[in-house]
Amino acid sequence: MNKVTLQPIGIIHTPYKTDENAPRQAANSHDMGEVVVNPELAEGLEGIEKFQYLILIFNFHLAPVPEKPKVLSWQDGVKRGVFATRSPHRPNPLGLSVVKLLRREGTHLFVEGVDMLDGTPLLDIKPYYSDLDCVEKW
Amino acid sequence: MNKVTLQPIGIIHTPYKTDENAPRQAANSHDMGEVVVNPELAEGLEGIEKFQYLILIFNFHLAPVPEKPKVLSWQDGVKRGVFATRSPHRPNPLGLSVVKLLRREGTHLFVEGVDMLDGTPLLDIKPYYSDLDCVEKW
Repeated sequence: MNKVTLQPIGIIHTPYKTDENAPRQAANSHDMGEVVVNPELAEGLEGIEKFQYLILIFNFHLAPVPEKPKVLSWQDGVKRGVFATRSPHRPNPLGLSVVKLLRREGTHLFVEGVDMLDGTPLLDIKPYYSDLDCVEKW
Repeated sequence: MNKVTLQPIGIIHTPYKTDENAPRQAANSHDMGEVVVNPELAEGLEGIEKFQYLILIFNFHLAPVPEKPKVLSWQDGVKRGVFATRSPHRPNPLGLSVVKLLRREGTHLFVEGVDMLDGTPLLDIKPYYSDLDCVEKW
């Protein structure tokens, strides 16, 4: 199958410079982050203020891809298939976090609940909908 | 920023050959799909059976990228910034759906609630956790 080439749409600034001091998963974080979208995509943010939560898809840019698709899960320390974990060490290093949108200033989104490293390349922003994204609300 | 190049990890088979007959969002679908993971990544699926729901990240491979990052929202017909919508016509054509895992047979995952087109390139599979992915459960 053809490769998929993506150009980051922006960058995510967070308090975390190294993996050791980053929280495990956005749901466990109340730290503030700043999402800076590339100026040429400014129009793409119109109307985003009405959403309370956003889904960020980003690149685990510092996570080496493992040779074998098995990793130690941080949740229980058991080695299992990477697709049964949320490890950053994935064949395609894509990260997914739901964050709370506090405010927008132009192309800068101020968000709460970040868990990614400072300088993380942002690939997509989607509005979070309870009735689509939370199976308990289906 | 550097481009991010991804190699699909598999393919998603669904009943939908064209955009017109596909449902809007996985939460609105009870149709069955089959996720076929590349054989060299088979080990990556070990332990996945214990999860009831999976997050699929995929490539909207047939959705043209819009010239301007504004689209008509199917929900209310209002033109707004693409990052405030779930439109497939995004600068980076990444799709996100939560599906129900019915069973696994080797590298084949049989799932319920698909909304993507047949033949969609799969980029990642993550286990769904209520306490991470559903803000109402935080």
